[in-house]
Formats: sequence, C-alpha cells, structure tokens
Amino acid sequence: MSIVVLAAGQGKRMKSDLPKVLQPLAGRPLLEHVLDSARTLQAETIHVVHGHGGEQVREALADAPVQWVLQAEQLGTGHAVAQAMPAIPDDHQVLILYGDVPLVRRETLVQLLSRCDERSIAVLTVELADPTGYGRVVRDAARNVVRIVEQKDANTKEQAIKEINTGLIAAPAAALRRWLAALKNDNAQGEYYLTDIIVMAAREGLRINAVIAPTEAEVMGVNDKIQLASLEAELRVQRARALMIEGATLVDPARTDIRGKVGVGRDVFIDVNCVLIGTVELGDRVHIGPNCYLKDCRIEADTRLHPNCVIDSATIGPRGSIGPFARLRPHSVLHEEVHIGNFVEVKNSDIGAGSKANHLTYLGDATLGRKVNVGAGTVTVNYDGANKWRTEIGDEAFIGSGAMLVAPVKVGAGANTGAGSTITRDAPAGKLTLARARQVTIDAWRRPVRKADTGKPGSEK
Amino acid sequence: MSIVVLAAGQGKRMKSDLPKVLQPLAGRPLLEHVLDSARTLQAETIHVVHGHGGEQVREALADAPVQWVLQAEQLGTGHAVAQAMPAIPDDHQVLILYGDVPLVRRETLVQLLSRCDERSIAVLTVELADPTGYGRVVRDAARNVVRIVEQKDANTKEQAIKEINTGLIAAPAAALRRWLAALKNDNAQGEYYLTDIIVMAAREGLRINAVIAPTEAEVMGVNDKIQLASLEAELRVQRARALMIEGATLVDPARTDIRGKVGVGRDVFIDVNCVLIGTVELGDRVHIGPNCYLKDCRIEADTRLHPNCVIDSATIGPRGSIGPFARLRPHSVLHEEVHIGNFVEVKNSDIGAGSKANHLTYLGDATLGRKVNVGAGTVTVNYDGANKWRTEIGDEAFIGSGAMLVAPVKVGAGANTGAGSTITRDAPAGKLTLARARQVTIDAWRRPVRKADTGKPGSEK
Amino acid sequence: MSIVVLAAGQGKRMKSDLPKVLQPLAGRPLLEHVLDSARTLQAETIHVVHGHGGEQVREALADAPVQWVLQAEQLGTGHAVAQAMPAIPDDHQVLILYGDVPLVRRETLVQLLSRCDERSIAVLTVELADPTGYGRVVRDAARNVVRIVEQKDANTKEQAIKEINTGLIAAPAAALRRWLAALKNDNAQGEYYLTDIIVMAAREGLRINAVIAPTEAEVMGVNDKIQLASLEAELRVQRARALMIEGATLVDPARTDIRGKVGVGRDVFIDVNCVLIGTVELGDRVHIGPNCYLKDCRIEADTRLHPNCVIDSATIGPRGSIGPFARLRPHSVLHEEVHIGNFVEVKNSDIGAGSKANHLTYLGDATLGRKVNVGAGTVTVNYDGANKWRTEIGDEAFIGSGAMLVAPVKVGAGANTGAGSTITRDAPAGKLTLARARQVTIDAWRRPVRKADTGKPGSEK
Repeated sequence: MSIVVLAAGQGKRMKSDLPKVLQPLAGRPLLEHVLDSARTLQAETIHVVHGHGGEQVREALADAPVQWVLQAEQLGTGHAVAQAMPAIPDDHQVLILYGDVPLVRRETLVQLLSRCDERSIAVLTVELADPTGYGRVVRDAARNVVRIVEQKDANTKEQAIKEINTGLIAAPAAALRRWLAALKNDNAQGEYYLTDIIVMAAREGLRINAVIAPTEAEVMGVNDKIQLASLEAELRVQRARALMIEGATLVDPARTDIRGKVGVGRDVFIDVNCVLIGTVELGDRVHIGPNCYLKDCRIEADTRLHPNCVIDSATIGPRGSIGPFARLRPHSVLHEEVHIGNFVEVKNSDIGAGSKANHLTYLGDATLGRKVNVGAGTVTVNYDGANKWRTEIGDEAFIGSGAMLVAPVKVGAGANTGAGSTITRDAPAGKLTLARARQVTIDAWRRPVRKADTGKPGSEK
Repeated sequence: MSIVVLAAGQGKRMKSDLPKVLQPLAGRPLLEHVLDSARTLQAETIHVVHGHGGEQVREALADAPVQWVLQAEQLGTGHAVAQAMPAIPDDHQVLILYGDVPLVRRETLVQLLSRCDERSIAVLTVELADPTGYGRVVRDAARNVVRIVEQKDANTKEQAIKEINTGLIAAPAAALRRWLAALKNDNAQGEYYLTDIIVMAAREGLRINAVIAPTEAEVMGVNDKIQLASLEAELRVQRARALMIEGATLVDPARTDIRGKVGVGRDVFIDVNCVLIGTVELGDRVHIGPNCYLKDCRIEADTRLHPNCVIDSATIGPRGSIGPFARLRPHSVLHEEVHIGNFVEVKNSDIGAGSKANHLTYLGDATLGRKVNVGAGTVTVNYDGANKWRTEIGDEAFIGSGAMLVAPVKVGAGANTGAGSTITRDAPAGKLTLARARQVTIDAWRRPVRKADTGKPGSEK
Repeated sequence: MSIVVLAAGQGKRMKSDLPKVLQPLAGRPLLEHVLDSARTLQAETIHVVHGHGGEQVREALADAPVQWVLQAEQLGTGHAVAQAMPAIPDDHQVLILYGDVPLVRRETLVQLLSRCDERSIAVLTVELADPTGYGRVVRDAARNVVRIVEQKDANTKEQAIKEINTGLIAAPAAALRRWLAALKNDNAQGEYYLTDIIVMAAREGLRINAVIAPTEAEVMGVNDKIQLASLEAELRVQRARALMIEGATLVDPARTDIRGKVGVGRDVFIDVNCVLIGTVELGDRVHIGPNCYLKDCRIEADTRLHPNCVIDSATIGPRGSIGPFARLRPHSVLHEEVHIGNFVEVKNSDIGAGSKANHLTYLGDATLGRKVNVGAGTVTVNYDGANKWRTEIGDEAFIGSGAMLVAPVKVGAGANTGAGSTITRDAPAGKLTLARARQVTIDAWRRPVRKADTGKPGSEK
C-alpha cells in the first residue's frame, strides 16, 4: 500500500506567506496531523506532493519519513497524484489524502482501505446539511453507489442528496495510473481533476464503495483562517474529551488547549484557560490552577500549580507548590516538596527536596540542596556580561532576603547569609555571612520639595 | 417530611479515587449542592445513604446537619432507600434525592412535595429529545399519568414518548416502607430498583402525579467527567445570568466562573476570564480586569483591579488600585485609596489609607500607616528562619527602593530610608536613615571575556 | 438627510446609575457604536435626543459632532423624534436610529435610505424565530408591504408571520412632521409611539418599503445586562472574523476580545484569551501569547509576546521578545531586538536596540542606549518622594543585578556597575563602579530558635 498526500496548494485565502499545509493547528502544521494519521497505516511509502512553498514545507518537516514529490506546476489534483505514480508499484493500493484535511482518523482510513481492491475503489463520503457545490453520491435502491454527480450536472432530485464526495480515495495502483493518464483538463479551471477517475472506474465496471465519514469535522478542509479556527475548536474539544474519559477533571473543555500529548494520573484537576503544549505528564492528584501555560514538562503526584504559572521544559517533583505567577524555564528540576512562590523565576537549576523560594527571586544556573530557604528578592547573579556561572547552596542553608549571590559562589550547608548582602565569596557552612553597610541616621535631612511642574512627560509615577 | 439522599454510588466511569458524590462542581462536592437545595425544604431529617468511600464522604461533609446511613452493600436504589426507612415515621412524606443530581432547584422540589399525599405519589419527570433507555411516562387523554414503562417493555408508540422518569420521587412513608419491603431483584443486574414502587403504587390505586422539570439540566446526573463538565457549564451560565440580573456587567458570562456567593453593588464590571471563589463582596463601581482570581474577599466601592490579580482572603478599601500582577494573601487589609502595583505581594498586613507599593515588593506581616510610599524592590524581611516578625511603618514614611526592612523593625512617621538600605534597627521619625556603602570606581577594571564555549548546559541566559 | 438618534431611555432593567446608552459594549458606550455607523452616512446633522442622565451622556460624548436635543419628559418614541423635528428642513430624509441598537451596519442603513423618498417610507424589518410581541409585517402576494400589525391586533394568520418591524425608519421630513403632530397617546402606556406613523403613511397612500436586516443581531436592542453580554459576544465574533479574513491566525475567536481598531500585518498569530483595546498595530509575524492585554500599542515585525503580558501605550520595535509577565506602561519605546523578561516593568522609557532587562526589574523614566544589559532586580529609583528624575544608561553598559540607580544619574557607555550596588552618582564610561560592603563571616553566630507558638495570626510564611 502506498499513500499519496497532496500538499502543493497555496491557500491564497489564508493571506499568509506560509504554505497552506504549514498553517498551525494545535501548534503543529496541518500536514503533520495528516502524516500522523498516515503513519499509523504502515504504508510502504508515504509520498508527499509539494509545490507552493515547497522548500519551506520540506524544511519544516525535514524529519518526516516521507518521499517528497515535486509538482512544479499546479495543474489539478489528478495531475498532483500523477507525479507520485512513477514510484508506486502496480500491485499497490493507493490511498490519497490531503495535507489540508487534518482531522481524518486512522479508523476511517482503515475502513476505506478495506473497501478497495482490484475490482473496486473506495471513496470517503460525508453527509452535509448543505451539500451545495459538492459532488453528490448517487446510490441505487440497494444503497450501492451508482455514480458521483457534480453540482453543475445534478438534476433536482440529485441536488437534494446530502451525501457528498470528500475527495479521499483508495484505488488500485495499476488502474489508477491508467485513469490518471487519461484525465482531461477541458473544464473551466483547465485542471486535471482526480474525482474524474470515479467515472472512469465505473465505466470499466469497477465497484464504487462509499465509506461515510462519521462526522463532518473529520473531512473538513482548511481554506482560510476562519476554517482553521473551526478545526482548532473541534480538535480542542476532541482532545479535552479524551482527557476527561481518562479521568481528568477539566473545568471547561472549551477553554483547555491541548497542543501535544498529555498524560494524566488519577484525579488530575485542570482549571480554566490552561494551555498544554508538547509532552506534558501530570501525576496523580496534580492540581493545575487557572491560566497556566505548560510546555514539555513533568509534574509529579500531589503537586499544585496556583494560577498564572508558566512552565517550560521543567520537572517538578511530588507534593510541590508552585506559583501563582511562577515561571520555570528549561533544565529546571525541582525535587519533592519544593515551594516556588510568586514572581519567582527558575532556570537551569536543581532544587533539592523541601527547599523554598517564595517571593520575587531569580534562581538561574543554581544547585540548591535540601530544605534551603531563599528569602524574597534573591538573585543568583549568574552572568558577568560574558559568561554564565553556577551558584551552589548547601542543605538547610538560609539565604537572607535581597541577597545577590555573585556566581561562581558556594553557600555551605546550614549557612545563613544576612539580608541585603551581596555575597561574592563562598559563605562557609553553619555560619552567618553578611556584607552590610552600617545604618546611620541623618538628622539634618530635609524632605525633597516638589519642583514646579514642567509639563513634560514623565510626571506620573 | 424526611429527605433521603442516595450517595452510595462509586462512579466507576469517573476513574477517580474520590467517591462520585465528592467530585467537585463549581469548587464544591456534588453532594453539597444537593444538600444546599435539600436544606431549604425544612425536612425533619435529611438522611444521606452512603456506601462507596463512605468514610471520605462523611469526613468531607462532617459539618453537614444530616443523618448518615450506611448502605454496606450496593444492592440498588430501592435497597438504598430501605436503609434509611427505619428512622422515618409512618406519617412523613419522603422525598428521595440523588447525590449525583446536583442542579435540582428548591422550587421544583417544593412542587414535587405539593403533589404527594397519603393517596398519591409524585414523580419528577422531564422531556428529552432522545429518551432512549429511560422509563417513559405514559399519560391518558386527560394527561393523567397511567404508568411508567421501562425501555425494554415499551411498545413502539410508548417508545416515541419524550417524557421520562428522573427517579426523583416523593411518597408517603408508610406505603413506601411497605413497597420497599416487597421489591424483588429478579432482573439482569440483580438489584432492587426504587422505580418499581411506582407500579406498586399504581396497583394499590394511588394516584401518580408527574411534575415536569423545566429543564433537562436540573435533573442531569453525573456519571463521567464529560457530564461533570457539562453541568459545570450549565451552572456557570446560571450563576453568571443571576449576577447580570442583579446588574453586574459581565463581559462574557461563558468565561466567568462563580464558585461561591458573590455579592455586587451598583455598576460592578467584571472582565473576561475571572474566577470568583467562596464569599466575594464587590462594592459599587468595582472594576475587575481580565484574568483575575478572587477568593473570599471584600472589595469596596470604586476600587479597580487591573488584569491578572490573585486575591485571597483580603479586604480592599474604596478607591483602591490593584495590579496588574498583584497578589494579596490572607489577612491583608487595605484601607481606602491604597495602590498596590505590579509584582507586589501582600500578606497578613494592614495598609493605611493612601499608601502605595507600586513595584516588585513583598509586604508580609507589616503594618503601614497612612500615605506611606514603598519604593520598588522593597522586602519586609519577616522570617529569620525560625520565627515571623512584624514591620511597622508610620504615616507618610518614604521607604527608598530596594529596602530590606529586617523585622522586628519600626520606621517612624515621616521617616525616609535611603534607597538600597538594609534597615535592621528602628528608623526614627522625620529623619533620613540609610545603610549604604561608598560608591567607588575601579579604573583598572577589565570587562570579562567570554570563555571558550564548553558545550555544557547552562549556556543560555 | 438628517439622522435622529433616540437616546433618552433610562434602561431600568440595567440596574445601573449609568444611562442605558452609555453602557459599555466592547469598551465603548452603546451610543458611540450607533454614532460610528451614523457618521459614515454623511447626514447634514445627527440629532441625538437625550433625556435620562442627559448630562452624563453629553459629557461622555462631548466630542461627538452631533446636535443635542433634550427630551425633558419621556413620552414615547414619537414624542422623542418630534423634539428633533424643528431643526430639520422639510425636504430632508429623516433616518431614525436608536442609541441602544448598536450593531446596525452602514450597508443596511444605506439600503434603508435608498428605499425612502417623497412617496414612500422605509422600515427596517427582521425575521425572528419567535416574533411574539413585535409588530408583524404583512405583505401581499407580490411581497409588497400592506401594513404593520401590532401583536394585540394580529389575527392567527398574522401572528404566524416571522417578519417584524424593528422601529428603524427612514421617512420624508415634511410628512413625518405632520404625522408626528397627529400622534395620539391613547394607549396603555400613555405614550406617543413612532410606529404609529406607518399606518398614517399607508393611509395617505405612501408606499411602505421594508428592508429586511440580514441578521437579528444587527437590530438587537439592549434592555438588560444579559442582552448586553449577548451583543458583546456577537461583536466579539464579528471582529474576530474580520481579523481572520485579513489573515490573522486567532486560535480561538470566541476568546479574543477586540475593543478597538486592530491592524495586522502578514501572519500575525494571536493565542487564546487576549484582550486588545484602542488602537493596536501588529506587524508582520508578530506572535502574541495567551492571556496578553494590549492597549493602544504598536508592535513591529517578528516580535514575540510571551504569555501574560500587559502592554499599555507602548511601542515595541521589530524582533523583540517580551515577557512572560512583562508590563509596559505609557510612553515606553523599545527599539529593535529588545528583550524584556519576566516580572519587568517599563514606564516612560526609551530602550535602545538589542538591550535586555530579563528579570525582576523596574525601568521608569530611563533612557537606555544600545546593547545595554540590565541585571535581575534592578530598579531605576526615579522618585524621591516629591519629584521624578531620569536615569540615563549608555551603549553596552552592564548593570549588575540588584542595582539601585538613584536618579538623576548617568551610567556611561560600556560601564559596568557591580552587583548589589546603589549608584547615587554618575558611573563613568568603560569602568567598573560599585558600592559594596565588605563580606564578613560571624563565627559566633547561632541559628534563630523557634519561639513558642503564640497562636496569633501571622504564623504562616
């Protein structure tokens, strides 16, 4: 079996410099969604026919295990499939998919293939409330497909038919090759239409099997940004439902955006308006507050994210408490029972069990032991303008508020650094280290007086 | 009158370790919603029949004024009700509710009870677009209920009936006791079904009164997380509508989550995507920006919350300005005209009228007088690693930016603390106090040079 | 042509101290929406009839080029229009609009006017699924309007008519003046109804032209906050669709609030839950993350806003990176390739190309040159309690973390300020300047011991 994916279209109505099949749906190109479904079918080869923006398409999907086929001129869908045929053996089934019909499901394609053999082609159809403009599927009394009639050729009775042809087809390769060669472009657009092979197949006495897609969404194509948003909504609901079936509590599936693979343990709770991107693993009883943004992360059992957290490529151990307003950046590993509070950023750091940084802090390129307490307003000064350096803090150290820990620097286990200290050299274990100016009071001081207002900007605080 | 609430089900399809009736709807267990409605009816006793996860259920609702009845084995709804009957006097009406049917309204239950007496039982019904699977309510030409026929026993004409039995019933206790004792479990599930009493009642010549629930939502049960989300959506819209009827302007009722009791004055404005939890009081003309999270708080007239605020158990006086990105934590009291700006956290503090903390500040365990100005980057250093201490700041004091106020410490009225000062001892009123190192310039300094890139992580800033 | 806008209603069901026509829709008063449409029609004069809260209405729209007409008593729509007639010449067409019907479109009004002349009046109608309560439009076999029949006078056949009168009318001035003078108030409300003129017109043999509004939304009036939210939803979708047609990718049009004029370049991407207010210009390939709030700003090509940014009256140059959790306040100008990171606030500042302030910083009243690096925890100390002062930082300066730059102050080009320094005097170019206390270790130090718990609040951290 071979698959041909048509991905050469420009998508003018997208008004985009991105080729249509690269438009993002749930954060990934339309074409990737199609290839994901295609890949599950174990075709010998997946041929992707590209044209408009071909270079961009190939680059964006450089790792996809597909055969790229160039359609230099866009002369119609029949012509596009024809470009892939030289590489397809005569005894194959050929399944034709579209790079801009992204939600088609494996189950449907398997069924389509099962209805195609040497003596029959299979077409995917769907029933539409308003079928105007589409080719109608004409069936006889026994529900066998007699033919497909285009809008312009349909009589009144045929125009009332709701079942239409989607263009997704499975056909035997040898016959398909023959039909494609015989296509004509004597139509208004001057294009070679793939659907014309259905008439040819019928004429040769092949059986036309129609598989009806269960939902319209599955065969919806994307021609503009409004349709793209419709498919996004459809996919959003599908993925949310799948997660709820697995047992996750989503407060509002219409406001939960899953743009990747999300794994959930028991009793995961996700509040409104969360966006989950890439590979996200949520352990048992993980609780995600509203407005959180999670990308490629792992959060272990019983950890709670308060509202408005942004987590990217981090691992959070069990029983942690994060946020609100926390940001974890890549290469951050938090062990169990870590507390990261509001307005705290963590980057490329390892935070030991039970450690806390609850307020207004930047931990970058840092290693913290267990039960460290980081005071408010602490900064690991990791960058000297040219290089990055690490900060190491031992178990049970207490970093006083407002500390500037100028890396490379070590704070020993059980050490205490005084509030407001800039620590430039290692602070020994178990002792208090500080750098602090003497407090003085100026008796002669006079409160500043307001200047005459100059009217220039900058007057508001 | 006695109420029996059936709350023993497991809810397998919930895929949860939490008993079904403890699943959260608008932040509270399903069962609590039912009990809220039940409590308004002034029953002599509310009996809650629990079984699966019974211990958890009793603990979660430890304060509920109900009689707990254990159903040790789950042998059907009839069996469940039977467990509660010993404690119910013969002359009572018995109203049977379900712990997983949370949206039933007082008005409907009052109507149901009004249709039940010694010679009649009342059943709550509803009309469904698709009644498949439910017991149909068969009425005669005079619209009197003749009987309820189960799906499997319904003839074609009966199957077309859209009115179905919801299972909510009011019945006279003596008769109910008799019927329950006579129930059989000779059915596929081997269970004793409560609905079988309707046939018995009819057989004895009692009148069957059907009260039609006005909406399907009111009688919807919850069996999986998808249905739970549907009810959440229904409740969200109901509560938003109620608030709008009171006069609040909600920019998007579908994106306003009210999970408790919200009181509003005149002309309250709530922007999109706010979550309100517990008891929230909003005074006249309070303006809540988008993405705010409010829990158990009181906000007085003319105060404005800018986007992305998180408020928990705080009181905000009139004419205040909060946020964006502000967080108020429990035991925070802000008097009138207080300004709390971005990236500012307030905890267990009392902030006097007209005081301001506009940027990057942590005020914890602090008492501020009137018209205090707190500079950016200020921290009340309230924790020494073992104990919490308070910071007191007098009226019209000016706290310079970057101050570390090491508690316990007092800053006197009208005092000024110099920028960048760590204040460890009391700063006297009306004077400038600072702790500052001398500024020096190192002529011989050379800019750091970039190391050869070692390729190890930590290279990004 | 003259336009009369009826804007005198109180809107009791709004439960608001704001006159109905000032209720905000997409951030602007209802009446402004109507006037926006009206203004495109080049009427000689737009008369606004005000009454309830008239002073407030006039103040709120003080700049609108309209003629204010007072309706001292609210005696009905006919009476209201009559107040404006003295100023309207006999040879004008008069178009009557409503201040609480905000979504009517220019195209529809143009069509309405085109159907009105000396011998005919034009009424705007609409088809409703449930027309109960409205005046039905009775047409003859040739689809000509015969008359408009009120609900109470409609026979069964007429009650089945779905087309109803919206009240928007265009009529010749001379005749209108005559009809208005002849109106009677012998009805239940004791009011003079404008719609009664239709009967008079028909009686005089004028033709009644009905223009059918394409959607119900276009003629929906606002009487309570629920209807206001419905129109907000309608307008939200309309504006989102318009932006998508221009080529913008909106991940969820139902969660994108456009409350002003948004201009977009090619391939702009706007993630969920963004609010755009006022005049917003987004250049090519600008990417806006979720939960961003943009007001009156300009963002140039290839700039990316990470989640949760709040931007107000700022300009951001090309190839910038902003947020997450960044806030730009008025009079902020960021040149190309500027990075503003998390928990950073910028106000009234000019930031040179390639400069970065990535963490926990406040830049207020500052001018930064090119390629400046601002360390975490930096504050421009711009306020001395009485006046605001500026900070100037030269090209390629490096501001160490935790700096307090006490304005007025200058940091020279290529200068470096040491971490944790409070800089009160100018730091010379190319040199290291610091203000730092000596680091000492106290050997005798003993870790604080936990006091006996006093049970008073403030114990939690």
